[in-house]
Amino acid sequence: MNDTVQHDPYDPKAFFDGMAAAGLVVPTAVLGTFGRGAKFEEVVNRFNELVNRLAKDDGAEVLAFPPVMDRRIMEKVHYLETFPHLCGSVHSFFGNGLEALKLAETADKGDEWGQYLRQTQVVLNPAACYPVYPTLSGTVPAEGRLITVLNWVYRHEPSLEPTPLQSFRMREFIRVGTPEQVIPWRDMWHQRGIDLLKSLELPVLSDVANDPFFGRGGVMRAANQRDQKLKFEVLVPVISAENPTACCSFNYHQDHFGSTFEIKTPDGNVAHTACMGFGMERIAMALFKHHGFNPDQWPAAVRQQLWT
Amino acid sequence: MNDTVQHDPYDPKAFFDGMAAAGLVVPTAVLGTFGRGAKFEEVVNRFNELVNRLAKDDGAEVLAFPPVMDRRIMEKVHYLETFPHLCGSVHSFFGNGLEALKLAETADKGDEWGQYLRQTQVVLNPAACYPVYPTLSGTVPAEGRLITVLNWVYRHEPSLEPTPLQSFRMREFIRVGTPEQVIPWRDMWHQRGIDLLKSLELPVLSDVANDPFFGRGGVMRAANQRDQKLKFEVLVPVISAENPTACCSFNYHQDHFGSTFEIKTPDGNVAHTACMGFGMERIAMALFKHHGFNPDQWPAAVRQQLWT
Repeated sequence: MNDTVQHDPYDPKAFFDGMAAAGLVVPTAVLGTFGRGAKFEEVVNRFNELVNRLAKDDGAEVLAFPPVMDRRIMEKVHYLETFPHLCGSVHSFFGNGLEALKLAETADKGDEWGQYLRQTQVVLNPAACYPVYPTLSGTVPAEGRLITVLNWVYRHEPSLEPTPLQSFRMREFIRVGTPEQVIPWRDMWHQRGIDLLKSLELPVLSDVANDPFFGRGGVMRAANQRDQKLKFEVLVPVISAENPTACCSFNYHQDHFGSTFEIKTPDGNVAHTACMGFGMERIAMALFKHHGFNPDQWPAAVRQQLWT
Repeated sequence: MNDTVQHDPYDPKAFFDGMAAAGLVVPTAVLGTFGRGAKFEEVVNRFNELVNRLAKDDGAEVLAFPPVMDRRIMEKVHYLETFPHLCGSVHSFFGNGLEALKLAETADKGDEWGQYLRQTQVVLNPAACYPVYPTLSGTVPAEGRLITVLNWVYRHEPSLEPTPLQSFRMREFIRVGTPEQVIPWRDMWHQRGIDLLKSLELPVLSDVANDPFFGRGGVMRAANQRDQKLKFEVLVPVISAENPTACCSFNYHQDHFGSTFEIKTPDGNVAHTACMGFGMERIAMALFKHHGFNPDQWPAAVRQQLWT
């Protein structure tokens, strides 16, 4: 535990200011969009490589996608029914010279200028795995598919606390196949995630969880997701003891993506999918919180895991 | 030169299809947003490490920013006067349950649903260096500052050809100081960029250049930029012999960013800035174009440079 946070161990502002003073983050004017310093990035990269070593015999296919994806994917998976408040749609200018003049004048005055724009074909990735599913259409091999990505994700949730970022990286694994292939895989990664964060000497909790569904219908959706144990999270207290931060999540989608994108198993059934993801910035912040702002002084066992 | 492209050496479609068949890229439904395969990412990472080695004694500070930045930066630098057609503004949903229902219904029908959203505080980075300048406000040290970033950039230019991506990575260096510090630094990197791409056995051209300014006023801006030699590019033919692809650019901004963000040198003058950037995906594609789709079979000298 670092000296600077001893008297109030979970003060989010003191924690963020401490990271900034140590050069780990660079504050920006918009909540949840801070810059990352060299040491922060090194911890993210080292953790990513640790995950590579852990999963090296799994045979995952490596893919990478840009931070934007086809708007149709968001429509097809009915994201706007469940998380409209989190979406990020990319708008641009399609007008002529006179309209451009009005746009520039409005922006110059500091007024909103969104009304001069129109929706493009892309939205920001709401999850690292979304751009993967449409590329899987067709019949998967008998052993199923396993894909891994490290993509940027956007969620419109500006917050005074440092852990709910608007824009962050998720390292995900996506499993596609029969329920008999997918469910044990999800359970295996659940245990792996717990063990991995424990090996980094983080105080780990695990629980069944639900997504932050929108509105009244969301209450029932959340209850249903919990009842069916479709989502688990591994959590670490970072900015609060009472509300620990989800650092990994494990999701079983049943045939939701398989039926939407016509993914089948060789027996002709709709493929089931599951994914697991590490929130890279959250894990870096959990490490800084519990082991201090200087990675050179982290416990030897933690350093050995990350800097082998 | 790869067999698959011999009879029409610069056929963009054959080149993209060849990359897809080799697993280097994964096609998506929206132009300029393809997925990247493991080998593509490895080439990007190896080139990035080669740049690290080349610049290791320069003492650059490493920063990283998310793909989105404060909307005010775009307003302050008057981006919408010069490149309104390229901007990407992030819009989200701020309404109630009834409005959410209308939004979801509209999206379900496949109609545009942008009218239900409002502009957030963020836009997509139009250049890798933009989020850096506001963090430099104040007085720089006597030796100036040197920053390096590898950020995702968005430009709204969907194209049938594979090199003008909508979303791509730029590795940039940003120099801040007096004109006497900044201009020779820009010239030094210009020669370094030429030498670096030549060392990778790419057919390199270099030329004074201009940005793709919007509209009638843009013609004069472009002429002015060329007259003052504010922008140079290093180009490699990738999809066309006549219109080679800019793979690096070198830009001298004079006091544009310094005055906008109140960056000063110790003598009290407004700081000047310059930046240089490598288009990571374009450089990877230039290598695949000229040395073939299988990096294991690239010329030994090129492999040695990248895989040391």
